[in-house]
Amino acid sequence: MKPPLRIAIAGLGTVGAGVVGLLQKNAALLEHRAGRKLELVAVSSRDRARKRPVDLGSAAWHDDAAALASLPNVDLVIELIGGSDGIARKVVTTALENGKSVVTANKALLAHHGAELATLAERKGVALGFEAAVAGGIPILKALREGIAANRVQAVCGILNGTCNYILSQMRETKRDFAAVLKEAQELGYAEADPSFDIDGIDAAHKLSLLAAVAFGNAVDFNAVHVEGIRHVTAVDIAFAQELGYRIKLLGLARLTEHGLEQRVHPCMIPLSASIAHVEGVFNAVVVEGDFVGRITLEGRGAGAEPTASAVMADVLDIAAGRGAPGFGVPATALQHLPNAPIARHTGAYYIRLMVVDRPGVIADIAAALRDESVSMEQMLQHGRSSVDAVPVVLTTHVTEEAAMVRALDRIQALNTVLEPPRMIRVENL
Amino acid sequence: MKPPLRIAIAGLGTVGAGVVGLLQKNAALLEHRAGRKLELVAVSSRDRARKRPVDLGSAAWHDDAAALASLPNVDLVIELIGGSDGIARKVVTTALENGKSVVTANKALLAHHGAELATLAERKGVALGFEAAVAGGIPILKALREGIAANRVQAVCGILNGTCNYILSQMRETKRDFAAVLKEAQELGYAEADPSFDIDGIDAAHKLSLLAAVAFGNAVDFNAVHVEGIRHVTAVDIAFAQELGYRIKLLGLARLTEHGLEQRVHPCMIPLSASIAHVEGVFNAVVVEGDFVGRITLEGRGAGAEPTASAVMADVLDIAAGRGAPGFGVPATALQHLPNAPIARHTGAYYIRLMVVDRPGVIADIAAALRDESVSMEQMLQHGRSSVDAVPVVLTTHVTEEAAMVRALDRIQALNTVLEPPRMIRVENL
Repeated sequence: MKPPLRIAIAGLGTVGAGVVGLLQKNAALLEHRAGRKLELVAVSSRDRARKRPVDLGSAAWHDDAAALASLPNVDLVIELIGGSDGIARKVVTTALENGKSVVTANKALLAHHGAELATLAERKGVALGFEAAVAGGIPILKALREGIAANRVQAVCGILNGTCNYILSQMRETKRDFAAVLKEAQELGYAEADPSFDIDGIDAAHKLSLLAAVAFGNAVDFNAVHVEGIRHVTAVDIAFAQELGYRIKLLGLARLTEHGLEQRVHPCMIPLSASIAHVEGVFNAVVVEGDFVGRITLEGRGAGAEPTASAVMADVLDIAAGRGAPGFGVPATALQHLPNAPIARHTGAYYIRLMVVDRPGVIADIAAALRDESVSMEQMLQHGRSSVDAVPVVLTTHVTEEAAMVRALDRIQALNTVLEPPRMIRVENL
Repeated sequence: MKPPLRIAIAGLGTVGAGVVGLLQKNAALLEHRAGRKLELVAVSSRDRARKRPVDLGSAAWHDDAAALASLPNVDLVIELIGGSDGIARKVVTTALENGKSVVTANKALLAHHGAELATLAERKGVALGFEAAVAGGIPILKALREGIAANRVQAVCGILNGTCNYILSQMRETKRDFAAVLKEAQELGYAEADPSFDIDGIDAAHKLSLLAAVAFGNAVDFNAVHVEGIRHVTAVDIAFAQELGYRIKLLGLARLTEHGLEQRVHPCMIPLSASIAHVEGVFNAVVVEGDFVGRITLEGRGAGAEPTASAVMADVLDIAAGRGAPGFGVPATALQHLPNAPIARHTGAYYIRLMVVDRPGVIADIAAALRDESVSMEQMLQHGRSSVDAVPVVLTTHVTEEAAMVRALDRIQALNTVLEPPRMIRVENL
């Protein structure tokens, strides 16, 4: 039997405690699967005095996380500090430079420095695992890198942020508005005190950039992601979505187009016939289209100490057993640099909601604006009549280019019968 | 770069042609992923004259499939002949004995001889891959063996037979009866001329026995699977399921219970809130419960040349790259032999449909029979009145042991107001 794999953990927050708990609770199973013992030899965290739900056993305590990364008796460092720079980056870089494999759940770090870190790992002949950085416990990166490795991927998309999915699910079920549901989610611990990272789509964009990199063998390019969050989704839109046979979800999507690699995160209308439309609450799901496998969907918990620990330990087991593909599926030096398809070149169908004066001729003006930009209307709904208030008019379009849609909306917004900025939600016919 | 991996394919039916097509179409990608070339050096099939949709290039033709398995210039044999014994078994055994790795889509062979073949492969130091044997293109075995390898699996279940799922989906959508939909499925090529292997649940049971073996590290035990097919599912039951908030699906389920490993294949009532309830047509899906990851679901095409070829080539790539866990997740010699939990010890909720005389006191007699066996009723529905014909009475129970349920049904069937054998469908609250 191989000698034990000696592990250090930097960061003992919720996920760190989850990983320690898993190492202890399933020790016999892990040894069986890895063909060797896994030993926790050192840990580090900000506050040694803090009470933790796990016993750290004989692991040596280090106040300085970076010190862990160069300990001679450590083979593998698990980085669970978080953040795209600062101490987390220093720990990972130092560990790799010292010839230690690294496993991390840090999506921000990988989204910003993934290609550079993977190159360093390969130069040093060690592994860099980040399964836990995307979609929590769902083994989606392994599925892309190995499970469907024989396929050319055409598209990948997913519900990548549990906070947003919880808020949108609650808005639909309780017919309340965004602000009220967000407040409740914060009270329940499903949203942070400063929720912007989640609800403005940044977290989902980090994850999408990693998914896209692995799916297309492309150097991770976070700045190429077009990002919109869910602040502007209203109860009215959710009710119309229901009527039209859709659910609104925050999706991250990446696909190859004639203009290059398109990467975007924004609210989408998804038809109820798609099983991903039924993924509710804090669950995540990822859909992949491959040229041979067709469409596959993976669903599971996208966050939380235990699911994330499961993904961290999957990487650790691969490293312990000496197996596994490179983190991005191909050697870092072989990653492509595909052109970035701009969002203006996106083609798709659109949902548009307008708040208009209820007066004859209004629809004719809107229809003329669409016609002038060659945007073809699929259906139109107007509910409610009012001689004093604005009333909603909803329309969906056939497939069109986004630039044309935006020009048509500029024309529509200029009409003096249209009282608020138009709301546009892209339709994804999954 | 490593020398090319030299491949022989035994069996050139639909899947075999799909694998040849994938080897050719994605040759550059495969080489990139494997770090070496993949070369098709030899093929074998029953009928050389048959027209095939692919060009076999320079591959040597052998009329005798078993001859492929001992060719000195072959590193890996892909077995796509099928069948639990006969020539397929001979090809696989011979290849392994000659120190060649084997990849197969043959669920019947593995269900009957899996433990023996895995032992032989390990003794010879070669790999035995069978991802394609379960759920077509869905990389579920890799997910179990590696993606969630740190978890103790508590349960695994799935829609494992596309023919049955297509028939049940069509029955629901078109409100037709089993026989009519089966006939149409046969005309469309979704069901075989002799459909019994699929509709009686044997195919799903083969797959379940493999899933259970990998999920629980248990020696595959096909004979331990309790099997019921879908012949007895009627349009009436499907309509009642809809009314009660369920869909009827043929599931394969395995879980650890206090009585041992429970393995069963039968029609189930699944609540509409479960995303697997929305997996329709020829798609397959598998749900796994792990102690850390919680519930994950994988969905995709369960059959067809291209998805199956995708799974076959995933195994080939793992072998070519020198990575991957043992086929059953742990060494064959370390597989457990868990006791087989008998179906009579199963505990769960039940849907019961009775055809009764519409007369006062009938329900009281039924309720008394349930009470006498300590079966607790959850709800009861009776639609339609008739003074001449039998009318359906449907009831659901709280969780009870199957043996008690069966005794209660024996009492109920003995009532002279109950005109047909009761129909029982297990409820799975996924």
